[in-house]
Amino acid sequence: MPRKMIVGGAQIGGIQKAETREEVVARMMKLMDEAHEKGVEFLVYPEMTLTTFFPRFYVEDRADFDHWFETEMPNAATQPLFDLAKKYKMGFTFGYCELTPGGQHFNTSVIVDPEGGIVLKYRKSHLPGHAEYEAERTHQHLEKRYFLEGDTGFLVVRNQDVIMGNLICNDRRWPEAWRELGLQGVELVTIGYNTPSQNNLKAEEGPERRVYHHRLSVCAGAYQNSTYAVAVAKSGVEDGNHMFAGSIIVDPDGFVIAEAKGEGDELITAECDFDKCAFGKSTVFNFAMHRRPELYTRIVTQKAAKVEV
Amino acid sequence: MPRKMIVGGAQIGGIQKAETREEVVARMMKLMDEAHEKGVEFLVYPEMTLTTFFPRFYVEDRADFDHWFETEMPNAATQPLFDLAKKYKMGFTFGYCELTPGGQHFNTSVIVDPEGGIVLKYRKSHLPGHAEYEAERTHQHLEKRYFLEGDTGFLVVRNQDVIMGNLICNDRRWPEAWRELGLQGVELVTIGYNTPSQNNLKAEEGPERRVYHHRLSVCAGAYQNSTYAVAVAKSGVEDGNHMFAGSIIVDPDGFVIAEAKGEGDELITAECDFDKCAFGKSTVFNFAMHRRPELYTRIVTQKAAKVEV
Repeated sequence: MPRKMIVGGAQIGGIQKAETREEVVARMMKLMDEAHEKGVEFLVYPEMTLTTFFPRFYVEDRADFDHWFETEMPNAATQPLFDLAKKYKMGFTFGYCELTPGGQHFNTSVIVDPEGGIVLKYRKSHLPGHAEYEAERTHQHLEKRYFLEGDTGFLVVRNQDVIMGNLICNDRRWPEAWRELGLQGVELVTIGYNTPSQNNLKAEEGPERRVYHHRLSVCAGAYQNSTYAVAVAKSGVEDGNHMFAGSIIVDPDGFVIAEAKGEGDELITAECDFDKCAFGKSTVFNFAMHRRPELYTRIVTQKAAKVEV
Repeated sequence: MPRKMIVGGAQIGGIQKAETREEVVARMMKLMDEAHEKGVEFLVYPEMTLTTFFPRFYVEDRADFDHWFETEMPNAATQPLFDLAKKYKMGFTFGYCELTPGGQHFNTSVIVDPEGGIVLKYRKSHLPGHAEYEAERTHQHLEKRYFLEGDTGFLVVRNQDVIMGNLICNDRRWPEAWRELGLQGVELVTIGYNTPSQNNLKAEEGPERRVYHHRLSVCAGAYQNSTYAVAVAKSGVEDGNHMFAGSIIVDPDGFVIAEAKGEGDELITAECDFDKCAFGKSTVFNFAMHRRPELYTRIVTQKAAKVEV
């Protein structure tokens, strides 16, 4: 039986500091209604969907920002979203900021199955930016201040008869992350992101170049692991800061098959035939035939580049 | 002092079965003359520059194809090329088929410094294709029949004040290969290729899609390791088989800065400022700050994909 499914990406326009979780969840549910009307069975929301991208703000005492984090999931604010998805028998994934009972802070995403159960929890592995205030930057990007590096590794789950795994934002630029999922047979990689339109250390790197890097990374990751990918933005102006949009769905051959037109709340959809992942996985990217793990040792024995010539 | 250098790519049009090494070397020298006139200080030739791409032909006894291999380098046929480069004080790299004194066959490339010395020898790690005749293919691609998998690993050398490393053809699709070079601080990756314009198992994958995959892989590898890359084709019609052209020079931001217009012998050039590699290596791809090698273990402990969900 062919494994065809309509997959959606729910791009979310900027969320201002003053917006409540409930207001955001209402916007998410509106997109879920639209997705259901279009036959979507699995829906991808962005990274840090419930709040503004607060790592652009500096506070000396990190605990002052605990109010941006969720201590349980689902919780009162998100329960209606879980309920609606269950009603629609729709699986979904979204990102949020997780504060554990032990006091650890992570940039997290979950996959929820059509019965409303959380079947995968992933914590962002590659935190970009910096931990201290850096005056030379045009804006701050303090993810290394507010989050711990994820401790889950790269996980997959079989949900709705598809092998799915999550990456979050900056993870998409790291081929190691894609390959870890590829080595588990992934067929759908979901990626949420909040990406400033401007490199904060390089004036000439604006939105056009940055969208190119985004697409390059996602298309290469999809192609080189023969997997579908859905990459979804929180985008537009947020607290006076611009983040690019460019949500895309990419096929296992590395081609963009759906993309967002605007920067606000917007649904993109594509019918995915997951059996199409098999061709690449059995030919050019047949890992069993072609990989050379014995030659890849620097990838795990070195963290930093070492110049020895 | 800025490290600027004009780098060239010498695309070679199809070489027919009947052409001699001497005839091919004469074509290579003509492009070298042109490169010298344009100020090129380092020149990149394709994979298997000296002969036709013979892995499209099947012979039962592999030894019948030993005549496609070189038993020493330089040799009588290539010495004039080495001499010309020395006269011009030009470094260069090219690929050829290597038969060792011990009887081993490799798909090899060398980097030659401006004094004419071979300073790096690389043997192709990722052999595509198959080892036996397969009737269901539109054409054969028997690299796994005629070559051993390379045993050198991914090497760099400091030549002309630039950290250089080689990949060959199919290697460019494997992010592990790029990362191994990136972890050694590479600033210029050279890639020679012979790539059929048609996927021999998928009728709908013709030259347009295949050039896209080529560019995607090279641009992503350059961007994600913040290195220049020069990828050069042997292209056009060879013994009735078409190979795509698309030779490119890519900057460390992943953008194409020079590309071939045709499918024949053609020089492309770009001025490269190797100090530009430092920005990416110290920010978004600062490996010491951002990589997570402890999470990448599948990359070396697994060869094949393992589906466990």
